[in-house]
Amino acid sequence: MTTPDSPPAAPPVITISDIRAAAERLHGVAHRTPVLTSRTVDQAAGVGAHVFFKAEHLQRGGSFKIRGAYNRMAQLSDEERARGVVAFSSGNHAQGVALAARELGIAATILMPADAPKSKLRATRGYGAEVIQYDRERESRDEIARRLTEERGLTLVPPYDHPHIMAGQGTAALELIEEVGPLDVVLTPVGGGGLLSGCLTVVRALCLDARVIGVETEAADDWVQSLQAGERVRIPVPRTIADGIRTDQPGVYPFAQVRALGAEVLTVSDDEVKAAVRFLAARMKQIVEPTGAVPVALLLSGRLGDLTGKRIGVLLSGGNVDADMLTGILMEAEPDTE
Amino acid sequence: MTTPDSPPAAPPVITISDIRAAAERLHGVAHRTPVLTSRTVDQAAGVGAHVFFKAEHLQRGGSFKIRGAYNRMAQLSDEERARGVVAFSSGNHAQGVALAARELGIAATILMPADAPKSKLRATRGYGAEVIQYDRERESRDEIARRLTEERGLTLVPPYDHPHIMAGQGTAALELIEEVGPLDVVLTPVGGGGLLSGCLTVVRALCLDARVIGVETEAADDWVQSLQAGERVRIPVPRTIADGIRTDQPGVYPFAQVRALGAEVLTVSDDEVKAAVRFLAARMKQIVEPTGAVPVALLLSGRLGDLTGKRIGVLLSGGNVDADMLTGILMEAEPDTE
Repeated sequence: MTTPDSPPAAPPVITISDIRAAAERLHGVAHRTPVLTSRTVDQAAGVGAHVFFKAEHLQRGGSFKIRGAYNRMAQLSDEERARGVVAFSSGNHAQGVALAARELGIAATILMPADAPKSKLRATRGYGAEVIQYDRERESRDEIARRLTEERGLTLVPPYDHPHIMAGQGTAALELIEEVGPLDVVLTPVGGGGLLSGCLTVVRALCLDARVIGVETEAADDWVQSLQAGERVRIPVPRTIADGIRTDQPGVYPFAQVRALGAEVLTVSDDEVKAAVRFLAARMKQIVEPTGAVPVALLLSGRLGDLTGKRIGVLLSGGNVDADMLTGILMEAEPDTE
Repeated sequence: MTTPDSPPAAPPVITISDIRAAAERLHGVAHRTPVLTSRTVDQAAGVGAHVFFKAEHLQRGGSFKIRGAYNRMAQLSDEERARGVVAFSSGNHAQGVALAARELGIAATILMPADAPKSKLRATRGYGAEVIQYDRERESRDEIARRLTEERGLTLVPPYDHPHIMAGQGTAALELIEEVGPLDVVLTPVGGGGLLSGCLTVVRALCLDARVIGVETEAADDWVQSLQAGERVRIPVPRTIADGIRTDQPGVYPFAQVRALGAEVLTVSDDEVKAAVRFLAARMKQIVEPTGAVPVALLLSGRLGDLTGKRIGVLLSGGNVDADMLTGILMEAEPDTE
């Protein structure tokens, strides 16, 4: 958690203007995803509480990632566009970059580990990207990326650590608040910090005193440790069911932004995440990937304190979960149907 | 299929005015469910086609059934309300009636077979209804219901065969067309015919020449046979994965309405239904019960002919599928993630 009385470490990296500009670029490209509500959830949250779910699992490519990727690539020079881009990801960022590149007519090369789910390889290729597979154990991803950027002149599109990426991700919160009005609490998953820092920027500009809470799993608590230490702490690559937040360290720019504007980071257990996936399936009929369910796990935990009368925004960040993982989670317990 | 040149069998049972009145009654009671869209589906349907899914699986109680049940019960006399209502259903109608009764402060007794899924028993009781279980093999549901209506003076709320039920169900199509504009094709599942006949009434009033298509599974083709015969044909109780349309005969009033206004009825196989459930999960992240996926199965079959430039409305009727059935369907094949 941040210490409220400590001075900001540095000025903010991005402002609400950057996010409004990103929103204009994304108009007609990214879906304006629906906001979902549920009386069951409202009642579970607290008397008079209202929970608004921003349904980024219904976004193009299955997650919010197209927002940042497109906002980055739309600002490349003609020369950079002509040479193409490279990204590495075994997950949602791969699909976000591939889709954004197709929209912009830019050639995309995506480095994916050879053991990435076949469905994600197929989806990424389906968007027209060239996929290069590498052996996680024997090859260095960074080395391959370096060769591609230097030798082929490709521009790297990072998954979170760039102001343009952060501004793009923040458009999700901007749409949410434009649609439902001011919020008292905003919850997002946090991995590298692109989504959290972008959404935080929006909330601080539009609902000054709201609590903004990044949520990670217990094993992946690099943000909690970093905020406590006051500097970016690196942890061993975490093992967690929330595969979208298996980062070992906060991003430089997202960390600076969070330090400047102030957000909390709290954790949930993998079991709580799985229960949240089941809850979303049984009660809201939504298929959300474990990472997307991380903030819901915190909401359901009761550890947020008294939410009476509060208006709570929750970023459901993505829905790309393989059928075998999903069925495994669903079969652990059979929830009630309502 | 109806023969277009045959004269109407009778005047319509209900009109658009009945449905508008039902919509006023339902205001603030039933959710105005969202309309979902998908570029993947649009592209699969045809060049320039637009498909609009009315998300009744996100309705209160998990299906459209609260619409008709509430519209029926809101029109009972004070005396009838004081005595209470009875309904029989192992599925969505039970929850719809229980929920509507609670809203109206009416005591509800629901007859459910002893082998109904425990989750549905719990959900129905959770809405405050008294559940009476009976043995499907040894007891007559109709006999028990007759005793309850005669001895206790309870009013029967039928699942489809009443003009008030039909008018209530039609509000789903009214909301859809109010939100997205005129449609060229409207698809609904058809069991007893409450939803089909209600939606048909709306479409004929607002988009005169649209195709309205009820969809049933091959085993449950009582509507296809009945429309061919020109009279209500009774078939053996069908075995089909679409448990919401296991009716053996069209309802009297719905059949009259369909004959009067003209709709087609087409069939899909159970395997096509399961593939549609998987498609909705993988591509749209929605959990829809097999019955709700029946019209999607027809849409994906290619048997609707050329849909170039067409605007197609699809009623996703419900989402109440047990975790074990859902996982069974999802595990049959692992679809691509996109």
